[in-house]
Amino acid sequence: MSRFFTDRYASLVPYTPGEQPQNRQYVKLNTNESPFPPAPGVVEAAARESANCRLYSDPESRAVSEAFAASLGLDASQVLAVNGSDEALNFAFMAFGKKLAFPDISYGFYPVFAALNHIPYTEIPLREDLRLAPEDYFGLHRMIVIANPNAPTGIALRRDEVEAIVAANRDVVVLIDEAYVDFGAESAVPLLAHYDNLLIAQTFSKSRSLAGARLGFAIGSEALIRDLNTIKYSTNPYNVNRMTAAAGIASLAADEYNRANALTIRENRRFTTDGLRALGFELPESSANFVFARRPGLPGETLYRKLKERGVLVRHFSKSRIEDYVRVTIGTREQMEIFLRETEDVIKEVMA
Amino acid sequence: MSRFFTDRYASLVPYTPGEQPQNRQYVKLNTNESPFPPAPGVVEAAARESANCRLYSDPESRAVSEAFAASLGLDASQVLAVNGSDEALNFAFMAFGKKLAFPDISYGFYPVFAALNHIPYTEIPLREDLRLAPEDYFGLHRMIVIANPNAPTGIALRRDEVEAIVAANRDVVVLIDEAYVDFGAESAVPLLAHYDNLLIAQTFSKSRSLAGARLGFAIGSEALIRDLNTIKYSTNPYNVNRMTAAAGIASLAADEYNRANALTIRENRRFTTDGLRALGFELPESSANFVFARRPGLPGETLYRKLKERGVLVRHFSKSRIEDYVRVTIGTREQMEIFLRETEDVIKEVMA
Repeated sequence: MSRFFTDRYASLVPYTPGEQPQNRQYVKLNTNESPFPPAPGVVEAAARESANCRLYSDPESRAVSEAFAASLGLDASQVLAVNGSDEALNFAFMAFGKKLAFPDISYGFYPVFAALNHIPYTEIPLREDLRLAPEDYFGLHRMIVIANPNAPTGIALRRDEVEAIVAANRDVVVLIDEAYVDFGAESAVPLLAHYDNLLIAQTFSKSRSLAGARLGFAIGSEALIRDLNTIKYSTNPYNVNRMTAAAGIASLAADEYNRANALTIRENRRFTTDGLRALGFELPESSANFVFARRPGLPGETLYRKLKERGVLVRHFSKSRIEDYVRVTIGTREQMEIFLRETEDVIKEVMA
Repeated sequence: MSRFFTDRYASLVPYTPGEQPQNRQYVKLNTNESPFPPAPGVVEAAARESANCRLYSDPESRAVSEAFAASLGLDASQVLAVNGSDEALNFAFMAFGKKLAFPDISYGFYPVFAALNHIPYTEIPLREDLRLAPEDYFGLHRMIVIANPNAPTGIALRRDEVEAIVAANRDVVVLIDEAYVDFGAESAVPLLAHYDNLLIAQTFSKSRSLAGARLGFAIGSEALIRDLNTIKYSTNPYNVNRMTAAAGIASLAADEYNRANALTIRENRRFTTDGLRALGFELPESSANFVFARRPGLPGETLYRKLKERGVLVRHFSKSRIEDYVRVTIGTREQMEIFLRETEDVIKEVMA
């Protein structure tokens, strides 16, 4: 820390992203990326728009917002395009986060955004089986943030469970982070017609294979989106660049490709889940593009490390309650076969 | 404002970007964009990298940071890649801005970032001739922010004047915003070897024709950059997307193209300055890619409006001390000929 750093952030502990190795080629199952390339048309659209980059991007991101809103049956005034859905989360914390509540085990950025914005927060423990009990979130009088499906567990709430939470907290914003919703969970979008306190974050990083383009959306009532725009225009008016907006529009135009890929991921998740159980792992049914698994007698850190030596990268969190687990992104069938084979190999070595 | 909006930002007045008309084609001289397309190689690089967008971008932005640092004779640890230099400004305000001072007439985002971060600030009046007097900034005991060249005046400080300010404020960070430095001003980069309290922001939006790609840099000591990274990793770890990083690297590889364009802009600025003076305008010598001009008897708002009717877009600020002026981006010779012709036409109409 330099002698100039402000006291306000002196105790800030930044988020640690998953490893992004730039050298060695891994079977990369650690940051929940898609194994499939972006949709047909994305490269052409990005190339075409890159030629126009002498001009600022549209600060309103109108074209991509209209296309995205239309895909959900909403009006463009109900969505805000952001530079990755992390930006939607941060803007929402800034705009609506007087006090916060979120699960103790969830996306690791929530406590960081809370600390960054000096918002007091309560972490509500998941139940023993890592499930979120909706009734633990009734009448909290603080902004609630829930990832659905949750990360890193992969466990989803049904839409009626989400609705129960939203309905029981009409005095605060309930933010549902749907980064992984396209892999089998129920989106809360249909609830927007009934609740003005519901805000949803979605991303193009997972099911739309555009993690490296940085595109996400906040989705909510016109009033909530207007508030988020107040923050955006005070922070980063040109937050979505021209190439990314063009890539997003092209991806939406070919969304059957993305949907087919999501189905393949679900098949490969079934294959991986069954394979891990056959190897003695315990894991909840996942609704995301990853699984969260542990095996009695095999510490998560050991499995992570030994898989990495073998060229397979998964994610381990050294956090109490979940340090036994690894989180494994679902890739291609071939990748998951390699993962299962190497995991079996690790078990043999460790148990020998 | 929704009923959920936090009191903390209730009085926030967001930044108003220059108009970005999406329909009518204007001779667009209002947001200081380059009239020249991005450097050769940019489109190919962006297209190539768009195909890799299923993977997150490198959170360290190593490749583009190394290329940019090398172009300045610095180490990559002395630069931080950001999503447009606005992000560098906001991160720096967050990290180092306990109290702030900046000119009363300068980039309109400084007071917005200060308000966003609840940092008390003092606006130091430019002198009567819109010049910044370095001695007004000696020993302030607050973080200082100066655009050099200044916007919207276009007036530059010499490097020794910048150094005098940096040397007279060793207890605080002095941030020099060099968005427009490539059009004839002296960069403060050589001073970095001597001052650990100097921080510089630069952008690829102007001289490198990449406004729509969103790429900028903070430049400073390793310690200052480390502090900015603490903020970045708590805000937006993947702030620079893959296509933009690739475009930036390609642009740096063809930097003689960008330098030649900057020279052309300087020639066209000379032509425009002379032309405006011949039409009775008063304007300071600009070191930026715009000029700031007024004509006795012709309100700036009138000229702005009547030029817009004629298909020429310039920028007017309804702010005391400068409401008589318009700011005119320097484009191609042909664009500036149209601008001067239409301006002459407006004068005839208004003075008739």
